[in-house]
Amino acid sequence: MEWKNLNTCKSFTKLQEVHKEQAKNLNLADIFNKENSCERVTSYQVKMGGNLKYNYAAKPVNEEILKALQALSDEQKLIEKYELLLNGDFINTGENRMVLHQLTRGQLKNDVVYKGVNMRSFYLNELSKIKEFSKDIHSGKIKTSTGKTFTDVVQIGIGGSDLGPRAMYIALKNWAKTTGKHKMKAHFISNVDPDDAAEVLNSIDLASSLFILVSKSGTTQETLANERFVKSVLEKNGLDSKKQMLAVTSETSPLANNPDYLTSFYMDDFIGGRYSSTSVCGAAVLALAFGMETVESFLKGAAEGDRLSLNKNIKENASLLDALLGVYERNVLSYSATAILPYSQALSRFPAHLQQLDMESNGKTVNRSGEKISYKTGPVIFGEPGTNGQHSFYQLLHQGSDIIPLQFIGFKKSQIGLDVESEGSTNMQKLNANLAAQIMAFAAGKTDENKNKDFAGNRPASLIYGDELNPENLGALLAHYENKVMFQGFIWNLNSFDQEGVQLGKTLAKKVLSKDMPPALKAFSELL
Amino acid sequence: MEWKNLNTCKSFTKLQEVHKEQAKNLNLADIFNKENSCERVTSYQVKMGGNLKYNYAAKPVNEEILKALQALSDEQKLIEKYELLLNGDFINTGENRMVLHQLTRGQLKNDVVYKGVNMRSFYLNELSKIKEFSKDIHSGKIKTSTGKTFTDVVQIGIGGSDLGPRAMYIALKNWAKTTGKHKMKAHFISNVDPDDAAEVLNSIDLASSLFILVSKSGTTQETLANERFVKSVLEKNGLDSKKQMLAVTSETSPLANNPDYLTSFYMDDFIGGRYSSTSVCGAAVLALAFGMETVESFLKGAAEGDRLSLNKNIKENASLLDALLGVYERNVLSYSATAILPYSQALSRFPAHLQQLDMESNGKTVNRSGEKISYKTGPVIFGEPGTNGQHSFYQLLHQGSDIIPLQFIGFKKSQIGLDVESEGSTNMQKLNANLAAQIMAFAAGKTDENKNKDFAGNRPASLIYGDELNPENLGALLAHYENKVMFQGFIWNLNSFDQEGVQLGKTLAKKVLSKDMPPALKAFSELL
Repeated sequence: MEWKNLNTCKSFTKLQEVHKEQAKNLNLADIFNKENSCERVTSYQVKMGGNLKYNYAAKPVNEEILKALQALSDEQKLIEKYELLLNGDFINTGENRMVLHQLTRGQLKNDVVYKGVNMRSFYLNELSKIKEFSKDIHSGKIKTSTGKTFTDVVQIGIGGSDLGPRAMYIALKNWAKTTGKHKMKAHFISNVDPDDAAEVLNSIDLASSLFILVSKSGTTQETLANERFVKSVLEKNGLDSKKQMLAVTSETSPLANNPDYLTSFYMDDFIGGRYSSTSVCGAAVLALAFGMETVESFLKGAAEGDRLSLNKNIKENASLLDALLGVYERNVLSYSATAILPYSQALSRFPAHLQQLDMESNGKTVNRSGEKISYKTGPVIFGEPGTNGQHSFYQLLHQGSDIIPLQFIGFKKSQIGLDVESEGSTNMQKLNANLAAQIMAFAAGKTDENKNKDFAGNRPASLIYGDELNPENLGALLAHYENKVMFQGFIWNLNSFDQEGVQLGKTLAKKVLSKDMPPALKAFSELL
Repeated sequence: MEWKNLNTCKSFTKLQEVHKEQAKNLNLADIFNKENSCERVTSYQVKMGGNLKYNYAAKPVNEEILKALQALSDEQKLIEKYELLLNGDFINTGENRMVLHQLTRGQLKNDVVYKGVNMRSFYLNELSKIKEFSKDIHSGKIKTSTGKTFTDVVQIGIGGSDLGPRAMYIALKNWAKTTGKHKMKAHFISNVDPDDAAEVLNSIDLASSLFILVSKSGTTQETLANERFVKSVLEKNGLDSKKQMLAVTSETSPLANNPDYLTSFYMDDFIGGRYSSTSVCGAAVLALAFGMETVESFLKGAAEGDRLSLNKNIKENASLLDALLGVYERNVLSYSATAILPYSQALSRFPAHLQQLDMESNGKTVNRSGEKISYKTGPVIFGEPGTNGQHSFYQLLHQGSDIIPLQFIGFKKSQIGLDVESEGSTNMQKLNANLAAQIMAFAAGKTDENKNKDFAGNRPASLIYGDELNPENLGALLAHYENKVMFQGFIWNLNSFDQEGVQLGKTLAKKVLSKDMPPALKAFSELL
């Protein structure tokens, strides 16, 4: 396989040329102030997993640009690289590891065998262990020390062991309550700030809570400190952590095979933290909270997303197209940030998960062979749910000095179903009216003689939408972004699966704690 | 007063020249890899309100740059403009309004009299009303319909009626519980997504909850829809909203003087939503949650911040200096985003408040006289608490292709006080060791032959720190950012107090709801 930097691709040079030729036809304000833009709205979309669709009608593209993006995809052999990854190639060059998170939810290519173990079987086996265990917890077969059924589950983890699983739990909590699937309330302790653990522990009945300790390496400073914190509080309350704490870790970690835990579920080095929501890292807490059936629907949606991502035609592959449009916006149009705007309160922490997924994967300036690159890579990712964001940072999005591409997400139905009509419409109708209105306002703008009330428009947006936010659609949504980030990494020729940038801070923090540090660092540490 | 665009200031041209001359002396990696940088750490700092300090040792400045920034401050007459504002000038040109949020917490200049009313007295009078009312609620003098004491308070509002008050509540909740000041649990309903209101209402005892409806204009679509939603649910539960809902609005709004509310507290057009945390908009819910004494400390801290912001010497005025450094980074160094990184779980929603405060105030390309400007204005603001962010987007901050200035916030003490030692240090010590380590890692970097493990450094950061996050320090912190944003608006010659950019979306949403819309908008609306 040939791995090439973006700026050495002929198709990238060609894309820049096509952009120059086509620029006059790509202004969204012009496009949407024409009569015939309705067909664009209904035709510029791609089927995703579940019943989701990816709509790119409000992106500054036309057939010529799409053709140039297809050529870039072909030259960078994006699908072939994805297939390599699926077949167990050591894609994570920096750490010399395979990248197998897609295998936690499906088998799309050859069997991947490592040290005699079929990896798909390994992941499936861990899921069956979770299924049995969660059944035993829900049925009361495994009881609390006072003979009761566990009511709450507390995940102790940070980064990928926290953000993804937490975002998924929040996304499905009300769906589960409404459909009768909600079995245990979940809580999360992540920050090493002692107030984080203290607040959670003060808010629950300790005796009826099950704790999941999640650390792949078994050495994460914050997570081990929080384990110690939780154990100390349990002890003070006369409780035995051995009977109410389980571990999610790798088989080679110091936490593995430890009789101090009720049970252990295993992951491995081939699944990065930020890609671990569909591994045991997310599955354990989600199965305990909602039952394994819900987890299986979630995995099914993700698997379908992975399958659809194999299509070489960018018009039939939403994550591939989204990736290419993102690179076009970053490297041709020079936009430096992307806003994630879910019109769904249940997705309130989804932008925080995408922040890690995207910025930790592609916030790099060294290619996968360890050479410096000169072009822009991953953008800043931020976002809040709509309509809240409309009353906050949308001013800058509409009239600020930088153009920021927008990724809207919406659903036809709410999760709880309780709604009220006022002024002739329900809250759900108001929510979605605002969503449609915003896409149009950003794209088409509005001319006004008063420059303060003038909107230039031409601010691009995409829309992912579906019937409702259920487990299958959530799985498809998650896989969409994972695969988008993977494709962007391939286009930029990055290794999207390591994170060397987080190491220096860790090393220096240890120096501070051991009081062995350079003078300026000592001076900073003495301020606090 | 002369109002000038930034690019017409001689001092701005000079700043660019000084920057060119000094660039070789400003690399933070060089500065912090020298022996003598300790003194820089302890001397590059400014006292703020409460016991906070603003440390800018890890900003790419030296005495020459600071001198040039002082000249810019002088030429743009930043303090004089602040004094105009305090004296009741109609600074909000777009809406022809005074800007009086500082007056909610202190009287620094002349009396401001409007239509015969002394505005300071007006604000103080509303605060006394809140004091009396919250006392009556806490003492049980005002009881629920079932004769009990109210236990919960639910704020219904969006944007500034939500983000600021919510962030302040979360910031002080554990402090209040620990110091015995916590009186009522607060909840917030903001999003028009019906799942937002439904989730909150499903989680509380409706009969013992007090609702605060917050809308200055009395016409906010989402807030009125949520009022209707709440009233409908109360009715279904046989409850009378007249006995458990109060209004925070302006005296000219349709909600004012309405006997359908238990009581009303008034604000006015001279306080913008995003500047309203210290007005009745924040004070009502905070006084109910924590008592008026806590609100008074909070206001005291903010007032002190305002007073310190009057100093013309940028080395003695933290918000002024922070504003100038931000402009230097935005317009000379061309950085397009700023990350807010509080090492305090209690400040988990503070970045979301600053997102509105900053991006809605200065995300503009028209100056205060309504003329287009050509230079960059407000940056993207985003952030999450540390250490969580370290395991998420810090990869991009350390090694990404764009430099993003960082604003760290930290405290010596935790709020709850419960802590545990592991590996020779407490969680709080680990938290602050990480904070110091990060500043140093970003600034100094680390050379490595393996380019993937190489850190160029020279990534600027400031640090705001203090003893603990209590009401007074929180007030000072809030005022710091309000005044920073105000000064940046003056430097860029913007009107930081209107938000015309949010209007177009509102208008189009109404068109969708009334089914009277252009075809392309109809096509988008039919997707959902």
